[in-house]
Amino acid sequence: MREGCFIAETPKVVEEFLRSGYIIDQWIATEEYQAPAGLSISPTRVSSQELKSASRLQSPNGTLAVFQIPKIEESNNADFILALDGVRDPGNMGTIIRLADWFAIDAIYLSEDCVEVWNPKVVQSTMGSLARVQPVVSDLVKLAESWKGQGGQVWVADMEGSSLYESSFDSKTMLVMGNEANGPSQAIKELAQALTIPRFNSDGAESLNVAMATAIILSQAKRPS
Amino acid sequence: MREGCFIAETPKVVEEFLRSGYIIDQWIATEEYQAPAGLSISPTRVSSQELKSASRLQSPNGTLAVFQIPKIEESNNADFILALDGVRDPGNMGTIIRLADWFAIDAIYLSEDCVEVWNPKVVQSTMGSLARVQPVVSDLVKLAESWKGQGGQVWVADMEGSSLYESSFDSKTMLVMGNEANGPSQAIKELAQALTIPRFNSDGAESLNVAMATAIILSQAKRPS
Repeated sequence: MREGCFIAETPKVVEEFLRSGYIIDQWIATEEYQAPAGLSISPTRVSSQELKSASRLQSPNGTLAVFQIPKIEESNNADFILALDGVRDPGNMGTIIRLADWFAIDAIYLSEDCVEVWNPKVVQSTMGSLARVQPVVSDLVKLAESWKGQGGQVWVADMEGSSLYESSFDSKTMLVMGNEANGPSQAIKELAQALTIPRFNSDGAESLNVAMATAIILSQAKRPS
Repeated sequence: MREGCFIAETPKVVEEFLRSGYIIDQWIATEEYQAPAGLSISPTRVSSQELKSASRLQSPNGTLAVFQIPKIEESNNADFILALDGVRDPGNMGTIIRLADWFAIDAIYLSEDCVEVWNPKVVQSTMGSLARVQPVVSDLVKLAESWKGQGGQVWVADMEGSSLYESSFDSKTMLVMGNEANGPSQAIKELAQALTIPRFNSDGAESLNVAMATAIILSQAKRPS
């Protein structure tokens, strides 16, 4: 595979990238796969065995494509941005990108020590949402400083902080979610207001998975008041 | 392994079951593992290689125990119960059990076609919450009928239904979450009120993963009003 490319698999995920105008570099499919109508390109037909040997999935499904990684432009008129500070698990990152798509988040930023976003496991677990939500690798400390300079709020999810249910979110909000094991970095904590999801069972679970916590916070922040 | 037993691994998960009074059948650990003080039993010491060959994890960690599956008694004074209707993925079920623990759900019920709850992948992904939240395999249709007979509300998450943010939850609520691909069963839909998480981006993600949807609904239903 050429540099600057990534792999997408299954009809749903491949077609989401095609629909979003991603440029295809290589495309294979079994005879059974029906490509969407109206495309100027078509997949090279391969046997199930050939698809299997190219696939990263346990159960390959119909088609695999290699796309060019797009050049992503930073959005200048964002109201709500999400930043991931050292999220390492591909499944967590993929799930969070899917959530960002659901909740119409304007932009998503990743610290350099996050898992690589074009990693096949991340791409597959976004279920195609990566075709619409394009994450930017960025220095989150600089980003938070500039966001605050523009009058925006910066929140970071942490074990100790204001209750999510008693906090109100400004029209210009940046939310930072930290590493699975260690939480957010010290530098971000110093810049941001800490936000906590209250635990309902004091003898219960000690923590929530980062993707669950993101789901709960985004729902609360975006719900109509 | 004897019938009626299940496997738990890693210090955290094994110790959660010990703390909750689960009865141990076999227990192994490497020399490095330090068992909690005050126990009347201690693990059999094994080499890392022996732990590895007994383990179901990619990276075994310190200890593995075989516990007896407890006889679970149904709760009679529940206010908020969660039911899973055909949830097949062990990771989803484990994550949902962890959420139920966080949100202090009184009881969790599983239809017979759910993945087996004592499956090692479910046990590990609950991160120990299964030691506190004990799911009961049950006929959900009968359960919903009897719940309604007692004056309780039955909600089912579905693609079309009342908006989550405009619904109010009674003091006695049963929430049903359906199968990953097909949603809830027809029999449950006929008994329950449908509940939907509004999509913020109409061109965006088509669905949320069932564990994400559970996180969002539980947070909304349990938050202080």
